[in-house]
Amino acid sequence: MTPAHTLPGEYFTSPSIFAQELRRIFWRDWVCVDRADRLTQAGDYLLADLGEQSVIVLRDGSGQYRALHNVCRHRGTRLCSEPHGRLRERIQCPYHAWTYGLDGRLVGAPHMDTVQGFARQDYPLRSAALQSWEGFLFLNLGEGSEPLDDALAPLQSSISRFRLPGLRSARRIEYDVQANWKLVVLNYSECLHCPVIHPQLAKLSPYQSGANDLTEGPILGGYMDIAREGGSLTASGRACGAPIPGLPEADHGRVYYYSIFPNMLLSLHPDYVMFHTLWPVNAAHTRVVCEWLFPPQTLDDPAANPEDAIEFWDTTNRQDWRICEQNQAGIASPAYTPGPYSENESLLAAWDSEYLRKLGGADR
Amino acid sequence: MTPAHTLPGEYFTSPSIFAQELRRIFWRDWVCVDRADRLTQAGDYLLADLGEQSVIVLRDGSGQYRALHNVCRHRGTRLCSEPHGRLRERIQCPYHAWTYGLDGRLVGAPHMDTVQGFARQDYPLRSAALQSWEGFLFLNLGEGSEPLDDALAPLQSSISRFRLPGLRSARRIEYDVQANWKLVVLNYSECLHCPVIHPQLAKLSPYQSGANDLTEGPILGGYMDIAREGGSLTASGRACGAPIPGLPEADHGRVYYYSIFPNMLLSLHPDYVMFHTLWPVNAAHTRVVCEWLFPPQTLDDPAANPEDAIEFWDTTNRQDWRICEQNQAGIASPAYTPGPYSENESLLAAWDSEYLRKLGGADR
Amino acid sequence: MTPAHTLPGEYFTSPSIFAQELRRIFWRDWVCVDRADRLTQAGDYLLADLGEQSVIVLRDGSGQYRALHNVCRHRGTRLCSEPHGRLRERIQCPYHAWTYGLDGRLVGAPHMDTVQGFARQDYPLRSAALQSWEGFLFLNLGEGSEPLDDALAPLQSSISRFRLPGLRSARRIEYDVQANWKLVVLNYSECLHCPVIHPQLAKLSPYQSGANDLTEGPILGGYMDIAREGGSLTASGRACGAPIPGLPEADHGRVYYYSIFPNMLLSLHPDYVMFHTLWPVNAAHTRVVCEWLFPPQTLDDPAANPEDAIEFWDTTNRQDWRICEQNQAGIASPAYTPGPYSENESLLAAWDSEYLRKLGGADR
Repeated sequence: MTPAHTLPGEYFTSPSIFAQELRRIFWRDWVCVDRADRLTQAGDYLLADLGEQSVIVLRDGSGQYRALHNVCRHRGTRLCSEPHGRLRERIQCPYHAWTYGLDGRLVGAPHMDTVQGFARQDYPLRSAALQSWEGFLFLNLGEGSEPLDDALAPLQSSISRFRLPGLRSARRIEYDVQANWKLVVLNYSECLHCPVIHPQLAKLSPYQSGANDLTEGPILGGYMDIAREGGSLTASGRACGAPIPGLPEADHGRVYYYSIFPNMLLSLHPDYVMFHTLWPVNAAHTRVVCEWLFPPQTLDDPAANPEDAIEFWDTTNRQDWRICEQNQAGIASPAYTPGPYSENESLLAAWDSEYLRKLGGADR
Repeated sequence: MTPAHTLPGEYFTSPSIFAQELRRIFWRDWVCVDRADRLTQAGDYLLADLGEQSVIVLRDGSGQYRALHNVCRHRGTRLCSEPHGRLRERIQCPYHAWTYGLDGRLVGAPHMDTVQGFARQDYPLRSAALQSWEGFLFLNLGEGSEPLDDALAPLQSSISRFRLPGLRSARRIEYDVQANWKLVVLNYSECLHCPVIHPQLAKLSPYQSGANDLTEGPILGGYMDIAREGGSLTASGRACGAPIPGLPEADHGRVYYYSIFPNMLLSLHPDYVMFHTLWPVNAAHTRVVCEWLFPPQTLDDPAANPEDAIEFWDTTNRQDWRICEQNQAGIASPAYTPGPYSENESLLAAWDSEYLRKLGGADR
Repeated sequence: MTPAHTLPGEYFTSPSIFAQELRRIFWRDWVCVDRADRLTQAGDYLLADLGEQSVIVLRDGSGQYRALHNVCRHRGTRLCSEPHGRLRERIQCPYHAWTYGLDGRLVGAPHMDTVQGFARQDYPLRSAALQSWEGFLFLNLGEGSEPLDDALAPLQSSISRFRLPGLRSARRIEYDVQANWKLVVLNYSECLHCPVIHPQLAKLSPYQSGANDLTEGPILGGYMDIAREGGSLTASGRACGAPIPGLPEADHGRVYYYSIFPNMLLSLHPDYVMFHTLWPVNAAHTRVVCEWLFPPQTLDDPAANPEDAIEFWDTTNRQDWRICEQNQAGIASPAYTPGPYSENESLLAAWDSEYLRKLGGADR
């Protein structure tokens, strides 16, 4: 019996496989966009860019979240240019002033009403599915998608005790990584590299500790132990605040790590939560957004130190991106051939299977 | 009946359609190069770059304008590197000193005369058709092209009263626009966007005023009214000098706008003339050159203010380029589909038809 | 009879022909990497990049030179990032610490020994052929290659009197040239351009002097005369030191120039040796490394002036790169067609034949 092997090199370098990934994965699956509480007022919006697709994610007057393609139905102009902002009741095209409600309906189209055969109801902004889950917004550009709750059901039980919807974001950092998006996920999915790449992390959390509870399918992960009692993953090794209120005692000494296919990485600490979203730019370039969430009590407590967690993971993130980039450079060589996974890399083999299954799906 | 619709997205993003446009349009049609009076002395030249083709446009010793490919017949070296300059009677290759007359004849080829089978007359610089019309130089890289005068005949009657050959250039500005060249033409072909994009222009010239007189074929356009009597399109709203000498009274309150397929935009004001030439770089990038022409009397009159016109249109140009770029970004989305034109956009529908007809022509 | 002509334009611009050149020439033939004496200690290495392939060229503990692909057999990570350096007995992957001997054997693979079906001997670093010749290292990524000594045999007799292995490098300069690698070789292969491009060189060495002794096959070249008795090719025209010890009197007034297919240019002066290696980046971009070698006596002699040679050729190199770039720009035009070679360019016609023969070889 041969061990599971890494994917062939073309999966990390081919522009045509990258184009298939957009069509069959990123434009069809649920992707995590951001925290819902970034949109607090009616008209608040942010842009989600998935390849060439730009989508306006907004909160409408009734408080509902919506996703509308950022493309005017008249001449195709991008409606919103800023990555986030606030709209006033209407979305107006900056070119010829076609005007849409926050629900996408076309409500004004200068000089069109005299055009024979034209009817406003035929030209709403194209919409996409958008749902919130545990305080996060998920977007789906496909048609007839699986309900989001079903997709995330495997994670629900292990996650609800972290009371995610009540946490508040303290920091958001964007990184440009010159590596394929899959290498970022695969890097996240094992700690075999921790002693080599992250000596500080390996000290705080033994790299072979813990166990995985989700070992196949679109959500994969488990927990690792925190070495020091009452500690956490921070630059100082001390917790940066009190544990998340209501979190069971058993979770005080653990960090849970889950990858949620395709683009979310969720890291649950006793005292805070970190998540990454991945935004593929091309086969060898990924934009990564990382955000740190804390209980409001921690952010309001002058004795707490959220920076301690942010500094720790920002350093760790940069160590990871550098080795991912070196991984990308090596895989690009025609001399690369798939290599064997160890048992510490079982989640990677599981992720590769899920990925191939999704990629192999019939094209639209 | 459905209204006319914008072109499908691939026409603005596909590298292969862009390559066809070069072959079937820019390398086959008459394209406006520049003003003839940029070449005043024998040997004066400028380079015209159409895609990968570089052409030397020059004035020879007899005062004739000529177009010669900027490619040595020996080893293929580019002969002239500077965008414009003056040649002394000969064009000499900077590599091995093959030397050509200003008519393209090979007059010197070191060490070639002993080569069996070599004859100088077999290796002239390749030439292209070049003709002047109303003070402008037009270049045609194709074979067996329609006579230039026939091509421009529809415009001749409405234009001769502007005495274009006698005007002098006061300014030339080059812009880099991150949009397909067709979006620049289409933007020029309607003023429906003026109230939104150019509030100052819309005040000086009501956007629904005037009428079009050329509504199908390769030359399209008409006039719009100037709101203020004796005014013009300038930053101050005042004419920047006396009307063009001899211009009929009826034209003193109008601006004429014509697009000349494929790459020229000609804007005739009572007191000055502006023209744009478009130079496609790739499907999403166009170099645009804008030049302002005045009667010599205006340029010599200390009380006149040519800057007033230049400032106005430079600002307006930049507003246009920005919205063209936003238009390009939106059209690049797979969510874009053709949208309906209003009647104010009838010239765009006509231009699209002409474009498709030219593009569809049999390949060489 | 028609004279020999230059190659069609696609050979200098087509990405697919460039990809074939990598596969059929640079990944199959012997290419010169560098001087062997850059690797003096056990563990010294340098990287050779041939297209996407990165190869570690090193000296092992027994003094043997080896070439190992810079790709970990585990997850494909690039093992060495710095262009040169020193390894300590082992090559360790920076990602998960797989460890290899300097002979490429896998000697450590954490957590792999428990994996069923895994055996270390199945995962050595991939190796390539590496041989030294006259003090130079040559690399061959192909299989079943011709012995290096056979390939270089035509040059052996004319070169051994320069005692190349004993020379020492005084300077190494890297250049980025925006031209196809073949144009750099072709430029080197004639001095017809010298009076135009290098007036200083043409004064020191009459461009029609000398004779070629290797006129077909993979090694091409001959000698030219030095005009001034006891002089050399230097900025001052004076020799920069004593002649290379033991060099026959007859060679004191000559410079020998040889191109060694595909990527080496070797220039032998009475008092020093210069060589170039060419590293294709893409169809229109080549990295060129130039190095100057002197007898140790010259480098140790305070009255000698090695800088005189370096300055001369650095200036000459830059003149060549500029005209090669202008050659590339012209050839990219669809108006370019092959032009005739003169008899002074007979080596270029011979080189083109050899090139086409190699390129036409059956694909792997």
